[in-house]
Amino acid sequence: MKRIVLFGTGNVATHLFEAYKNSDNFKIIQVYNHASETLQAFKDQVAITTNLDEIAPADIYIFALKDDVLAELSKKTKETDALVLHTSGAVSKEVLNKFKNHGVFYPLQTFSKNKEVDFSNIPICIEANTKANTNSLKELGSEISEKIFEISSQQRKSLHVAAVFVSNFVNFLYTEGEKICQDNLIPFEILHPLILETASKVTKMSPLESQTGPAKRKDQDVINSHLELLNEEQQKIYSLLTLSIQNLHGKEL
Amino acid sequence: MKRIVLFGTGNVATHLFEAYKNSDNFKIIQVYNHASETLQAFKDQVAITTNLDEIAPADIYIFALKDDVLAELSKKTKETDALVLHTSGAVSKEVLNKFKNHGVFYPLQTFSKNKEVDFSNIPICIEANTKANTNSLKELGSEISEKIFEISSQQRKSLHVAAVFVSNFVNFLYTEGEKICQDNLIPFEILHPLILETASKVTKMSPLESQTGPAKRKDQDVINSHLELLNEEQQKIYSLLTLSIQNLHGKEL
Repeated sequence: MKRIVLFGTGNVATHLFEAYKNSDNFKIIQVYNHASETLQAFKDQVAITTNLDEIAPADIYIFALKDDVLAELSKKTKETDALVLHTSGAVSKEVLNKFKNHGVFYPLQTFSKNKEVDFSNIPICIEANTKANTNSLKELGSEISEKIFEISSQQRKSLHVAAVFVSNFVNFLYTEGEKICQDNLIPFEILHPLILETASKVTKMSPLESQTGPAKRKDQDVINSHLELLNEEQQKIYSLLTLSIQNLHGKEL
Repeated sequence: MKRIVLFGTGNVATHLFEAYKNSDNFKIIQVYNHASETLQAFKDQVAITTNLDEIAPADIYIFALKDDVLAELSKKTKETDALVLHTSGAVSKEVLNKFKNHGVFYPLQTFSKNKEVDFSNIPICIEANTKANTNSLKELGSEISEKIFEISSQQRKSLHVAAVFVSNFVNFLYTEGEKICQDNLIPFEILHPLILETASKVTKMSPLESQTGPAKRKDQDVINSHLELLNEEQQKIYSLLTLSIQNLHGKEL
Protein backbone atom coordinates (compact mmCIF):
# COMPACT_ATOMS: atom_id res chain seq x y z
CA MET A 1 0.00 0.00 0.00
CA LYS A 2 1.37 3.40 -0.97
CA ARG A 3 1.20 6.27 1.49
CA ILE A 4 0.08 9.72 0.29
CA VAL A 5 0.47 13.13 1.92
CA LEU A 6 -2.01 15.66 0.57
CA PHE A 7 -1.12 19.36 0.54
CA GLY A 8 -4.16 21.62 0.46
CA THR A 9 -7.76 21.64 1.65
CA GLY A 10 -9.54 23.24 -1.31
CA ASN A 11 -12.05 21.77 -3.76
CA VAL A 12 -9.62 19.43 -5.55
CA ALA A 13 -7.93 18.29 -2.33
CA THR A 14 -11.27 17.60 -0.68
CA HIS A 15 -12.56 15.51 -3.57
CA LEU A 16 -9.26 13.60 -3.92
CA PHE A 17 -9.41 12.82 -0.22
CA GLU A 18 -12.91 11.39 -0.64
CA ALA A 19 -11.92 9.47 -3.76
CA TYR A 20 -9.05 7.58 -2.06
CA LYS A 21 -10.91 6.93 1.17
CA ASN A 22 -11.86 3.38 0.22
CA SER A 23 -8.73 2.47 -1.71
CA ASP A 24 -6.77 -0.63 -0.68
CA ASN A 25 -3.69 0.36 -2.66
CA PHE A 26 -3.30 4.01 -1.71
CA LYS A 27 -3.83 5.64 1.65
CA ILE A 28 -3.81 9.34 2.45
CA ILE A 29 -1.99 9.41 5.78
CA GLN A 30 -1.70 13.17 6.34
CA VAL A 31 -3.16 16.47 5.14
CA TYR A 32 -1.10 19.67 5.26
CA ASN A 33 -2.32 23.23 5.01
CA HIS A 34 -0.64 26.53 5.91
CA ALA A 35 -3.76 27.70 7.79
CA SER A 36 -5.48 25.50 10.33
CA GLU A 37 -9.15 26.50 9.90
CA THR A 38 -9.86 24.49 6.76
CA LEU A 39 -7.94 21.51 8.17
CA GLN A 40 -10.61 21.00 10.82
CA ALA A 41 -12.86 19.20 8.33
CA PHE A 42 -10.18 16.48 8.05
CA LYS A 43 -8.94 16.11 11.62
CA ASP A 44 -11.28 13.29 12.65
CA GLN A 45 -10.27 11.20 9.65
CA VAL A 46 -6.52 11.69 9.17
CA ALA A 47 -3.39 13.28 10.67
CA ILE A 48 -3.24 17.01 9.97
CA THR A 49 -0.45 19.58 10.19
CA THR A 50 0.31 23.24 9.45
CA ASN A 51 4.05 22.68 9.88
CA LEU A 52 6.22 21.71 6.91
CA ASP A 53 8.79 20.22 9.33
CA GLU A 54 6.17 17.70 10.43
CA ILE A 55 5.40 16.24 7.02
CA ALA A 56 5.23 12.46 7.32
CA PRO A 57 7.43 10.14 5.25
CA ALA A 58 5.37 8.92 2.31
CA ASP A 59 5.54 7.47 -1.20
CA ILE A 60 3.58 10.24 -2.90
CA TYR A 61 3.17 13.94 -2.13
CA ILE A 62 0.26 15.62 -3.87
CA PHE A 63 0.22 19.44 -4.04
CA ALA A 64 -3.45 20.28 -4.60
CA LEU A 65 -2.89 23.99 -4.17
CA LYS A 66 -3.66 27.32 -5.79
CA ASP A 67 -1.35 27.99 -8.72
CA ASP A 68 0.38 30.93 -7.08
CA VAL A 69 1.18 28.93 -3.94
CA LEU A 70 2.67 25.97 -5.83
CA ALA A 71 6.13 27.34 -6.63
CA GLU A 72 6.56 28.79 -3.16
CA LEU A 73 5.60 25.57 -1.39
CA SER A 74 7.75 23.55 -3.75
CA LYS A 75 10.77 25.62 -2.66
CA LYS A 76 9.98 25.21 1.02
CA THR A 77 9.42 21.47 0.88
CA LYS A 78 12.42 19.29 1.71
CA GLU A 79 14.01 17.23 -1.02
CA THR A 80 12.72 13.70 -1.22
CA ASP A 81 12.82 10.62 -3.40
CA ALA A 82 9.06 10.31 -3.13
CA LEU A 83 6.91 11.06 -6.19
CA VAL A 84 5.84 14.72 -5.96
CA LEU A 85 2.78 15.80 -7.96
CA HIS A 86 0.70 18.88 -8.54
CA THR A 87 -2.91 18.95 -9.74
CA SER A 88 -2.94 22.21 -11.67
CA GLY A 89 -4.13 22.59 -15.25
CA ALA A 90 -2.18 25.78 -15.85
CA VAL A 91 1.24 25.12 -14.30
CA SER A 92 3.95 23.14 -16.11
CA LYS A 93 5.56 20.15 -14.44
CA GLU A 94 8.91 21.99 -14.31
CA VAL A 95 7.78 23.86 -11.21
CA LEU A 96 8.58 20.58 -9.41
CA ASN A 97 12.02 20.15 -11.05
CA LYS A 98 13.89 20.08 -7.77
CA PHE A 99 12.31 16.75 -6.94
CA LYS A 100 13.96 13.66 -8.43
CA ASN A 101 10.57 12.09 -9.14
CA HIS A 102 7.82 14.47 -10.14
CA GLY A 103 4.80 14.85 -12.33
CA VAL A 104 1.33 16.25 -12.86
CA PHE A 105 -1.99 14.71 -11.90
CA TYR A 106 -4.69 16.99 -13.27
CA PRO A 107 -8.30 15.86 -12.84
CA LEU A 108 -10.27 17.71 -15.50
CA GLN A 109 -13.50 18.55 -13.75
CA THR A 110 -15.22 21.43 -11.96
CA PHE A 111 -15.29 20.84 -8.23
CA SER A 112 -17.38 22.46 -5.56
CA LYS A 113 -16.94 21.28 -2.00
CA ASN A 114 -20.59 20.60 -1.32
CA LYS A 115 -21.35 18.87 -4.62
CA GLU A 116 -20.48 15.18 -4.89
CA VAL A 117 -18.76 13.96 -8.04
CA ASP A 118 -18.28 10.51 -9.50
CA PHE A 119 -14.52 10.30 -9.96
CA SER A 120 -14.68 7.17 -12.10
CA ASN A 121 -15.87 9.31 -15.01
CA ILE A 122 -13.37 12.16 -14.57
CA PRO A 123 -10.51 12.33 -17.08
CA ILE A 124 -7.17 12.51 -15.30
CA CYS A 125 -4.38 14.10 -17.32
CA ILE A 126 -0.99 12.79 -16.29
CA GLU A 127 2.59 13.72 -17.09
CA ALA A 128 5.84 12.72 -15.38
CA ASN A 129 9.60 13.17 -15.67
CA THR A 130 10.37 9.47 -16.26
CA LYS A 131 8.63 6.49 -17.80
CA ALA A 132 8.57 4.74 -14.40
CA ASN A 133 6.88 7.74 -12.82
CA THR A 134 4.37 7.87 -15.67
CA ASN A 135 3.50 4.27 -14.84
CA SER A 136 3.14 5.12 -11.15
CA LEU A 137 0.78 7.94 -12.12
CA LYS A 138 -1.25 5.56 -14.26
CA GLU A 139 -1.65 3.25 -11.27
CA LEU A 140 -2.59 6.13 -9.00
CA GLY A 141 -5.14 7.43 -11.51
CA SER A 142 -6.63 4.06 -12.45
CA GLU A 143 -7.47 3.51 -8.79
CA ILE A 144 -10.17 6.20 -8.97
CA SER A 145 -10.89 6.82 -12.67
CA GLU A 146 -11.34 4.86 -15.87
CA LYS A 147 -10.07 7.73 -18.02
CA ILE A 148 -6.34 8.37 -17.84
CA PHE A 149 -4.73 10.52 -20.56
CA GLU A 150 -1.04 11.26 -21.06
CA ILE A 151 -0.97 14.98 -21.79
CA SER A 152 2.13 17.18 -22.19
CA SER A 153 2.54 20.43 -20.25
CA GLN A 154 1.93 22.43 -23.42
CA GLN A 155 -1.21 20.47 -24.27
CA ARG A 156 -2.42 20.76 -20.70
CA LYS A 157 -2.16 24.55 -20.83
CA SER A 158 -4.32 24.59 -23.95
CA LEU A 159 -6.70 22.10 -22.42
CA HIS A 160 -7.01 24.35 -19.39
CA VAL A 161 -7.95 27.31 -21.60
CA ALA A 162 -10.49 25.13 -23.40
CA ALA A 163 -11.89 24.12 -20.02
CA VAL A 164 -12.30 27.78 -19.08
CA PHE A 165 -14.35 28.29 -22.24
CA VAL A 166 -16.59 25.23 -21.86
CA SER A 167 -17.02 25.43 -18.08
CA ASN A 168 -16.20 28.73 -16.36
CA PHE A 169 -17.47 30.93 -19.18
CA VAL A 170 -20.43 28.64 -19.82
CA ASN A 171 -21.35 28.83 -16.15
CA PHE A 172 -21.20 32.61 -16.37
CA LEU A 173 -23.68 32.54 -19.27
CA TYR A 174 -25.94 30.38 -17.09
CA THR A 175 -25.69 33.13 -14.46
CA GLU A 176 -26.83 35.70 -17.02
CA GLY A 177 -29.71 33.42 -18.00
CA GLU A 178 -30.73 33.07 -14.37
CA LYS A 179 -30.60 36.83 -13.89
CA ILE A 180 -32.81 37.48 -16.93
CA CYS A 181 -35.31 34.94 -15.58
CA GLN A 182 -35.31 36.48 -12.12
CA ASP A 183 -35.80 39.98 -13.55
CA ASN A 184 -38.88 38.73 -15.40
CA LEU A 185 -40.37 36.51 -12.67
CA ILE A 186 -39.68 33.35 -14.65
CA PRO A 187 -38.47 30.28 -12.72
CA PHE A 188 -34.91 29.41 -13.85
CA GLU A 189 -36.00 25.74 -13.75
CA ILE A 190 -37.69 26.27 -17.14
CA LEU A 191 -34.20 26.48 -18.63
CA HIS A 192 -32.80 23.33 -17.00
CA PRO A 193 -33.84 20.87 -19.75
CA LEU A 194 -32.42 23.20 -22.41
CA ILE A 195 -29.13 23.52 -20.52
CA LEU A 196 -28.82 19.76 -20.10
CA GLU A 197 -29.75 18.98 -23.70
CA THR A 198 -27.35 21.60 -25.09
CA ALA A 199 -24.55 19.95 -23.12
CA SER A 200 -25.60 16.39 -23.89
CA LYS A 201 -25.90 17.14 -27.60
CA VAL A 202 -22.21 17.96 -28.06
CA THR A 203 -21.19 14.60 -26.62
CA LYS A 204 -22.98 13.04 -29.61
CA MET A 205 -22.35 15.50 -32.41
CA SER A 206 -19.84 18.31 -32.98
CA PRO A 207 -20.81 21.69 -31.46
CA LEU A 208 -20.06 23.16 -34.86
CA GLU A 209 -22.87 21.05 -36.27
CA SER A 210 -25.31 21.62 -33.42
CA GLN A 211 -25.24 25.42 -33.47
CA THR A 212 -28.72 26.96 -33.72
CA GLY A 213 -30.26 30.35 -32.91
CA PRO A 214 -30.80 33.83 -34.33
CA ALA A 215 -27.07 34.56 -34.70
CA LYS A 216 -26.47 31.55 -36.91
CA ARG A 217 -29.72 32.24 -38.84
CA LYS A 218 -28.62 35.89 -39.21
CA ASP A 219 -32.10 36.84 -37.97
CA GLN A 220 -31.40 40.54 -37.42
CA ASP A 221 -34.95 41.41 -36.28
CA VAL A 222 -34.75 38.97 -33.40
CA ILE A 223 -31.20 40.05 -32.57
CA ASN A 224 -32.29 43.70 -32.39
CA SER A 225 -35.31 42.92 -30.23
CA HIS A 226 -33.08 40.90 -27.88
CA LEU A 227 -30.57 43.73 -27.54
CA GLU A 228 -33.37 46.06 -26.45
CA LEU A 229 -34.12 43.81 -23.49
CA LEU A 230 -30.55 43.72 -22.15
CA ASN A 231 -28.42 45.97 -19.97
CA GLU A 232 -25.22 47.50 -21.29
CA GLU A 233 -22.89 44.73 -20.14
CA GLN A 234 -25.20 42.01 -21.45
CA GLN A 235 -25.43 43.85 -24.78
CA LYS A 236 -21.64 43.78 -25.13
CA ILE A 237 -21.57 40.02 -24.54
CA TYR A 238 -24.56 39.41 -26.79
CA SER A 239 -23.08 41.47 -29.64
CA LEU A 240 -19.61 39.94 -29.46
CA LEU A 241 -20.83 36.33 -29.32
CA THR A 242 -23.40 36.94 -32.06
CA LEU A 243 -20.69 38.41 -34.30
CA SER A 244 -18.35 35.50 -33.54
CA ILE A 245 -21.03 32.96 -34.38
CA GLN A 246 -21.71 34.78 -37.65
CA ASN A 247 -17.99 34.91 -38.48
CA LEU A 248 -17.73 31.18 -37.84
CA HIS A 249 -20.89 30.11 -39.64
CA GLY A 250 -21.07 32.86 -42.25
CA LYS A 251 -19.43 30.82 -44.96
CA GLU A 252 -22.00 28.05 -44.65
CA LEU A 253 -24.96 30.24 -45.58
CA MET B 1 -59.84 13.34 -31.59
CA LYS B 2 -58.59 16.76 -32.64
CA ARG B 3 -57.14 17.27 -36.12
CA ILE B 4 -53.95 19.28 -36.54
CA VAL B 5 -52.44 20.84 -39.66
CA LEU B 6 -48.73 21.52 -39.25
CA PHE B 7 -47.10 24.38 -41.19
CA GLY B 8 -43.37 23.95 -41.63
CA THR B 9 -40.82 21.16 -41.99
CA GLY B 10 -37.95 22.49 -39.89
CA ASN B 11 -36.50 21.22 -36.62
CA VAL B 12 -39.46 22.15 -34.43
CA ALA B 13 -42.05 20.91 -36.94
CA THR B 14 -40.23 17.62 -37.40
CA HIS B 15 -40.01 16.94 -33.68
CA LEU B 16 -43.64 17.96 -33.07
CA PHE B 17 -44.69 15.59 -35.83
CA GLU B 18 -42.83 12.75 -34.12
CA ALA B 19 -44.20 13.68 -30.70
CA TYR B 20 -47.87 13.47 -31.79
CA LYS B 21 -47.44 10.34 -33.88
CA ASN B 22 -48.72 8.02 -31.17
CA SER B 23 -51.33 10.33 -29.68
CA ASP B 24 -54.93 9.10 -29.43
CA ASN B 25 -56.31 12.56 -28.80
CA PHE B 26 -54.53 14.62 -31.44
CA LYS B 27 -53.71 13.68 -35.00
CA ILE B 28 -51.59 15.59 -37.48
CA ILE B 29 -53.54 15.15 -40.70
CA GLN B 30 -51.53 17.37 -43.04
CA VAL B 31 -48.16 19.09 -43.34
CA TYR B 32 -47.79 22.28 -45.38
CA ASN B 33 -44.60 23.84 -46.68
CA HIS B 34 -43.99 26.48 -49.36
CA ALA B 35 -41.23 24.38 -50.92
CA SER B 36 -41.73 20.72 -51.70
CA GLU B 37 -38.24 19.28 -51.13
CA THR B 38 -38.36 19.11 -47.33
CA LEU B 39 -41.94 17.78 -47.47
CA GLN B 40 -40.71 14.54 -48.99
CA ALA B 41 -39.65 13.22 -45.56
CA PHE B 42 -43.33 13.34 -44.52
CA LYS B 43 -45.12 12.13 -47.64
CA ASP B 44 -45.29 8.46 -46.70
CA GLN B 45 -46.81 9.25 -43.32
CA VAL B 46 -49.29 12.09 -43.84
CA ALA B 47 -50.96 14.28 -46.48
CA ILE B 48 -48.62 17.02 -47.71
CA THR B 49 -49.21 20.23 -49.67
CA THR B 50 -47.39 23.31 -50.94
CA ASN B 51 -50.66 25.08 -51.75
CA LEU B 52 -52.39 27.27 -49.15
CA ASP B 53 -55.71 26.76 -50.98
CA GLU B 54 -55.49 23.05 -50.21
CA ILE B 55 -55.17 23.33 -46.44
CA ALA B 56 -57.44 20.73 -44.85
CA PRO B 57 -60.18 21.67 -42.37
CA ALA B 58 -58.84 21.06 -38.88
CA ASP B 59 -59.24 21.98 -35.21
CA ILE B 60 -55.72 23.31 -34.72
CA TYR B 61 -53.27 24.97 -37.10
CA ILE B 62 -49.67 25.06 -35.87
CA PHE B 63 -47.26 27.48 -37.56
CA ALA B 64 -43.83 26.00 -36.81
CA LEU B 65 -42.03 28.46 -39.05
CA LYS B 66 -39.09 30.82 -39.12
CA ASP B 67 -39.92 34.08 -37.37
CA ASP B 68 -39.71 36.19 -40.52
CA VAL B 69 -42.12 33.92 -42.39
CA LEU B 70 -44.75 33.91 -39.64
CA ALA B 71 -46.41 37.29 -40.27
CA GLU B 72 -46.47 36.74 -44.01
CA LEU B 73 -48.03 33.31 -43.81
CA SER B 74 -50.51 34.51 -41.22
CA LYS B 75 -51.72 37.14 -43.72
CA LYS B 76 -52.04 34.61 -46.52
CA THR B 77 -53.90 32.00 -44.49
CA LYS B 78 -57.71 32.10 -44.71
CA GLU B 79 -59.70 33.13 -41.68
CA THR B 80 -60.85 30.25 -39.55
CA ASP B 81 -62.46 29.49 -36.21
CA ALA B 82 -59.82 26.83 -35.58
CA LEU B 83 -57.17 27.46 -32.93
CA VAL B 84 -54.13 28.97 -34.69
CA LEU B 85 -50.77 28.71 -32.93
CA HIS B 86 -47.17 29.61 -33.51
CA THR B 87 -44.16 28.02 -31.85
CA SER B 88 -41.76 30.97 -31.76
CA GLY B 89 -40.00 32.20 -28.65
CA ALA B 90 -39.37 35.65 -30.04
CA VAL B 91 -42.66 36.62 -31.70
CA SER B 92 -45.63 37.94 -29.71
CA LYS B 93 -49.01 36.26 -30.01
CA GLU B 94 -50.46 39.42 -31.64
CA VAL B 95 -49.01 38.38 -34.98
CA LEU B 96 -51.95 35.96 -35.09
CA ASN B 97 -54.56 38.61 -34.11
CA LYS B 98 -56.62 38.13 -37.28
CA PHE B 99 -57.64 34.67 -36.06
CA LYS B 100 -60.52 34.53 -33.60
CA ASN B 101 -58.78 31.79 -31.60
CA HIS B 102 -55.04 32.06 -31.36
CA GLY B 103 -52.09 31.51 -29.10
CA VAL B 104 -48.48 30.49 -28.68
CA PHE B 105 -47.08 27.02 -28.12
CA TYR B 106 -43.35 27.43 -27.53
CA PRO B 107 -41.36 24.29 -26.70
CA LEU B 108 -38.25 25.53 -24.94
CA GLN B 109 -35.58 23.22 -26.27
CA THR B 110 -32.82 23.07 -28.86
CA PHE B 111 -33.78 20.84 -31.74
CA SER B 112 -31.68 19.25 -34.42
CA LYS B 113 -33.37 17.07 -36.99
CA ASN B 114 -31.11 14.07 -36.55
CA LYS B 115 -31.02 14.14 -32.74
CA GLU B 116 -33.92 12.50 -30.90
CA VAL B 117 -35.41 14.34 -27.95
CA ASP B 118 -37.64 13.17 -25.11
CA PHE B 119 -40.57 15.61 -25.32
CA SER B 120 -41.99 14.60 -21.93
CA ASN B 121 -39.24 16.61 -20.26
CA ILE B 122 -39.47 19.70 -22.48
CA PRO B 123 -41.10 22.80 -20.95
CA ILE B 124 -43.87 24.11 -23.18
CA CYS B 125 -44.64 27.79 -22.74
CA ILE B 126 -48.24 28.58 -23.63
CA GLU B 127 -50.25 31.76 -24.06
CA ALA B 128 -53.66 32.30 -25.67
CA ASN B 129 -56.19 35.03 -26.34
CA THR B 130 -58.96 33.50 -24.20
CA LYS B 131 -59.20 31.34 -21.10
CA ALA B 132 -60.86 28.58 -23.16
CA ASN B 133 -58.00 28.62 -25.65
CA THR B 134 -55.47 28.53 -22.81
CA ASN B 135 -57.18 25.37 -21.62
CA SER B 136 -57.05 23.88 -25.10
CA LEU B 137 -53.34 24.64 -25.20
CA LYS B 138 -52.85 22.94 -21.84
CA GLU B 139 -54.54 19.81 -23.20
CA LEU B 140 -52.45 19.92 -26.36
CA GLY B 141 -49.25 20.37 -24.37
CA SER B 142 -50.01 17.81 -21.66
CA GLU B 143 -50.38 15.19 -24.36
CA ILE B 144 -46.62 15.27 -24.99
CA SER B 145 -45.02 17.01 -21.98
CA GLU B 146 -45.29 17.07 -18.21
CA LYS B 147 -44.11 20.68 -17.99
CA ILE B 148 -46.60 23.29 -19.16
CA PHE B 149 -46.00 26.93 -18.17
CA GLU B 150 -48.28 29.92 -18.79
CA ILE B 151 -45.88 32.60 -19.98
CA SER B 152 -46.85 36.07 -21.27
CA SER B 153 -45.50 37.41 -24.58
CA GLN B 154 -43.24 39.83 -22.69
CA GLN B 155 -41.89 37.07 -20.44
CA ARG B 156 -41.42 34.78 -23.41
CA LYS B 157 -39.26 37.36 -25.17
CA SER B 158 -37.01 37.57 -22.12
CA LEU B 159 -37.01 33.81 -21.79
CA HIS B 160 -35.94 33.56 -25.40
CA VAL B 161 -32.99 35.88 -24.77
CA ALA B 162 -32.07 33.83 -21.70
CA ALA B 163 -32.23 30.70 -23.86
CA VAL B 164 -29.84 32.29 -26.36
CA PHE B 165 -27.36 32.86 -23.51
CA VAL B 166 -27.61 29.39 -21.95
CA SER B 167 -27.87 27.43 -25.20
CA ASN B 168 -26.77 29.16 -28.43
CA PHE B 169 -23.93 31.12 -26.83
CA VAL B 170 -22.96 28.17 -24.65
CA ASN B 171 -22.80 25.95 -27.71
CA PHE B 172 -20.55 28.50 -29.38
CA LEU B 173 -18.17 28.32 -26.40
CA TYR B 174 -18.16 24.54 -26.81
CA THR B 175 -17.14 25.14 -30.43
CA GLU B 176 -14.20 27.27 -29.29
CA GLY B 177 -13.24 24.54 -26.81
CA GLU B 178 -13.34 21.94 -29.57
CA LYS B 179 -11.21 24.14 -31.80
CA ILE B 180 -8.56 24.64 -29.11
CA CYS B 181 -8.46 20.87 -28.59
CA GLN B 182 -8.14 20.15 -32.31
CA ASP B 183 -5.35 22.72 -32.68
CA ASN B 184 -3.42 20.92 -29.93
CA LEU B 185 -4.16 17.31 -30.94
CA ILE B 186 -6.26 16.73 -27.83
CA PRO B 187 -9.44 14.63 -28.22
CA PHE B 188 -12.51 16.83 -27.48
CA GLU B 189 -13.95 13.85 -25.57
CA ILE B 190 -11.69 14.76 -22.64
CA LEU B 191 -13.97 17.77 -22.09
CA HIS B 192 -17.29 15.88 -22.23
CA PRO B 193 -17.50 15.03 -18.50
CA LEU B 194 -16.65 18.63 -17.60
CA ILE B 195 -19.32 19.95 -19.97
CA LEU B 196 -21.95 17.59 -18.57
CA GLU B 197 -21.06 18.28 -14.94
CA THR B 198 -21.03 22.05 -15.46
CA ALA B 199 -24.56 21.80 -16.86
CA SER B 200 -25.81 19.32 -14.28
CA LYS B 201 -24.44 21.39 -11.42
CA VAL B 202 -26.68 24.39 -12.09
CA THR B 203 -29.79 22.25 -11.91
CA LYS B 204 -28.83 21.61 -8.26
CA MET B 205 -27.26 24.89 -7.17
CA SER B 206 -27.36 28.45 -8.51
CA PRO B 207 -24.81 29.22 -11.25
CA LEU B 208 -23.86 32.25 -9.18
CA GLU B 209 -22.76 29.88 -6.45
CA SER B 210 -21.05 27.34 -8.71
CA GLN B 211 -18.74 29.79 -10.52
CA THR B 212 -15.09 28.71 -10.41
CA GLY B 213 -11.97 29.48 -12.45
CA PRO B 214 -9.15 32.00 -12.82
CA ALA B 215 -11.48 34.93 -13.55
CA LYS B 216 -13.37 34.50 -10.29
CA ARG B 217 -10.12 33.85 -8.39
CA LYS B 218 -8.63 36.97 -10.04
CA ASP B 219 -5.61 34.83 -10.93
CA GLN B 220 -3.96 37.29 -13.30
CA ASP B 221 -0.92 35.10 -14.05
CA VAL B 222 -3.12 32.31 -15.38
CA ILE B 223 -5.33 34.78 -17.25
CA ASN B 224 -2.27 36.28 -18.98
CA SER B 225 -0.84 32.89 -19.90
CA HIS B 226 -4.22 31.88 -21.33
CA LEU B 227 -4.46 35.03 -23.45
CA GLU B 228 -1.09 34.21 -25.01
CA LEU B 229 -2.45 30.93 -26.31
CA LEU B 230 -5.49 32.44 -28.06
CA ASN B 231 -6.12 34.07 -31.40
CA GLU B 232 -7.38 37.65 -31.60
CA GLU B 233 -11.09 36.82 -31.67
CA GLN B 234 -10.76 34.33 -28.82
CA GLN B 235 -8.83 36.92 -26.81
CA LYS B 236 -11.70 39.40 -27.17
CA ILE B 237 -14.18 36.83 -25.88
CA TYR B 238 -11.87 35.68 -23.10
CA SER B 239 -11.20 39.24 -21.92
CA LEU B 240 -14.82 40.34 -21.98
CA LEU B 241 -16.16 37.29 -20.14
CA THR B 242 -13.31 37.40 -17.61
CA LEU B 243 -14.07 41.06 -16.91
CA SER B 244 -17.78 40.33 -16.57
CA ILE B 245 -17.15 37.50 -14.13
CA GLN B 246 -14.91 39.79 -12.09
CA ASN B 247 -17.51 42.55 -12.12
CA LEU B 248 -20.13 40.09 -10.90
CA HIS B 249 -18.04 38.34 -8.28
CA GLY B 250 -15.70 41.19 -7.35
CA LYS B 251 -17.70 42.25 -4.35
CA GLU B 252 -17.52 38.79 -2.83
CA LEU B 253 -13.74 38.74 -2.50
